Amino acid sequence: MTAATLTIDLNAVVANWQALNALSVSEVETAAVVKANGYGLGAGPVAGALAQAGARSFFVALAEEGVAVRKAVGNDPAIYVFSGLMNTDIPLIRDYTLIPLLNSAKQLVKFRMGLPDAPYGVQIDTGMSRLGMPLSEFIMVRDKIVKADLIISHLACADEPDHTQNKQQLQHFSEMTRGLSMRRSLSATGGILLGPDYHFDLVRPGVGLYGGEPFSNAAPVVTVSIPVIQTRNITAGQSVGYGAAWVAKRPSKIATLAAGYADGLIRAIGDGGMMVWAGNVPCPIVGRVSMDLLTVDVTELKRVPDHMEIINPHQTVDDVAKAAGTIGYEMLTSLGGRYKRDYVNG
Amino acid sequence: MTAATLTIDLNAVVANWQALNALSVSEVETAAVVKANGYGLGAGPVAGALAQAGARSFFVALAEEGVAVRKAVGNDPAIYVFSGLMNTDIPLIRDYTLIPLLNSAKQLVKFRMGLPDAPYGVQIDTGMSRLGMPLSEFIMVRDKIVKADLIISHLACADEPDHTQNKQQLQHFSEMTRGLSMRRSLSATGGILLGPDYHFDLVRPGVGLYGGEPFSNAAPVVTVSIPVIQTRNITAGQSVGYGAAWVAKRPSKIATLAAGYADGLIRAIGDGGMMVWAGNVPCPIVGRVSMDLLTVDVTELKRVPDHMEIINPHQTVDDVAKAAGTIGYEMLTSLGGRYKRDYVNG
Repeated sequence: MTAATLTIDLNAVVANWQALNALSVSEVETAAVVKANGYGLGAGPVAGALAQAGARSFFVALAEEGVAVRKAVGNDPAIYVFSGLMNTDIPLIRDYTLIPLLNSAKQLVKFRMGLPDAPYGVQIDTGMSRLGMPLSEFIMVRDKIVKADLIISHLACADEPDHTQNKQQLQHFSEMTRGLSMRRSLSATGGILLGPDYHFDLVRPGVGLYGGEPFSNAAPVVTVSIPVIQTRNITAGQSVGYGAAWVAKRPSKIATLAAGYADGLIRAIGDGGMMVWAGNVPCPIVGRVSMDLLTVDVTELKRVPDHMEIINPHQTVDDVAKAAGTIGYEMLTSLGGRYKRDYVNG
Repeated sequence: MTAATLTIDLNAVVANWQALNALSVSEVETAAVVKANGYGLGAGPVAGALAQAGARSFFVALAEEGVAVRKAVGNDPAIYVFSGLMNTDIPLIRDYTLIPLLNSAKQLVKFRMGLPDAPYGVQIDTGMSRLGMPLSEFIMVRDKIVKADLIISHLACADEPDHTQNKQQLQHFSEMTRGLSMRRSLSATGGILLGPDYHFDLVRPGVGLYGGEPFSNAAPVVTVSIPVIQTRNITAGQSVGYGAAWVAKRPSKIATLAAGYADGLIRAIGDGGMMVWAGNVPCPIVGRVSMDLLTVDVTELKRVPDHMEIINPHQTVDDVAKAAGTIGYEMLTSLGGRYKRDYVNG
């Protein structure tokens, strides 16, 4: 294989799930969010490992994603669908026993007509104005959802613990759901870290499972190792890469590596001072990131190895994301389809 | 299906290939670059359509990518591999009749030992310092590559027609290859547009095939259509999305759509004034782009449709890329694996 290798440590995913689980009291269920193909790392392997470790509920964005998770976890775990019920979802929801989180009175009516006896949940909006029934709509259906098995909302600012909106959303959620009999869930990773007031009956970590901020104690999950295609010596004044944007200030040795922005190594990191690692030795990326290639200054290395790493315990998903001006979540979901994927498990 | 739909117009890809082919004289072969899974659009369908339209040579980044293309185009077309010969490539190159573009004397020696009678090409560096033999190395092997079937180099600044490096690389390429008997190739899309001096025996367009700059006359290839999950009315002062970063200045209607940065709708476009289209009516994206969701101000619409478009003839791949601070190439390769993919053909 000549493709770069994306190694996904499922033991670390499980350890992160357990660590997040330990942050709430034992009555609170810790579920797992595996939407967007398990944040890009593979919904099937991730959900399978977590189910084996004891996770009993999974969350996906779309019904189609739920199908892949059902195949990985078997019949028992609950699989909730954030988008609720969309146009042609009824057969998938029925055949794979998915639980839609209904976002509007319209979705609720449609679901009950289509699958009168099937389980469902409800999503309410408490201030993010994105998914879920607004208060005005929820008031009208509140007495009609007694059979719902879960009611959820989502925090807009949980990654900023001091943001005033967190407490406002907590208060709205408590008031809107007071007296209802079904289980309640407000928090993803950020909300778990805000403390027990935010935990209710079920928490649903996503990014923290995959080693990303705001769960700063997370075990690293991802390693990206890239083969070196060739090395060359250049003179001072010689340029490297597209736009001749980087010019050597000294005689340099440049290694060309076989991964680029088509592999999710976001093009903007070319200006971000990112390193690529030869074992424990960091070497700076120089020049623009190409679609399939990176160029790295390896002048200081005594020996250029066959492979170098761009994401590893020295330089995390969040470090690389920051250099690209974005967040770890986007870095994870950008890691593309060309990698050889190795799963570490058990 | 509830996933967003990525429609890929293979007729437009073929039309772009024909238009680029018409820019060089008939003796010059027009190949097709289908690396990175056909710039994210599907190497198999794209290569298949182009082979049917008459393309006889294809270029990929890695040997593994060549396998997928071989399966799509049958036995006759030539498939060149930019990374040349990497560690364990010999069996793939042999079994799928791929042609490595050897980038170093080391690759050349290894290839001849492994597959003494198999065809190969050579890549030389003429100033980009990325892939290919530098002059010092090329001089040593120049007399030993008489059986090579193609010699290529790559321009670093072809997307900037006035950049002085273009003429320098042209001159280096002409001098380094003078007197050699094999076919010569210097130009991708940008180089084709620089004019006939840059065409040599074979041109190898990539991004222009897929409707991207710098080929400004390209027919648009990609449409992205996203289902609307729900709409809500909000008051002036209410915020939308993560970080409560966007606040309504007037009573507004907000639609939530089922695609986000996990689908390659780069998170940075949330600040970029991008539109989402209801037919011919543009509606602004408001709030941050989420992993699986977009929020759109649809206050001005009389009726909110079931689906809205974010890439279409009104707003191209390059327009969206610019709003994200990047280039169309990266936008194309970011379009992720969650879409339902529809190919328009014939």
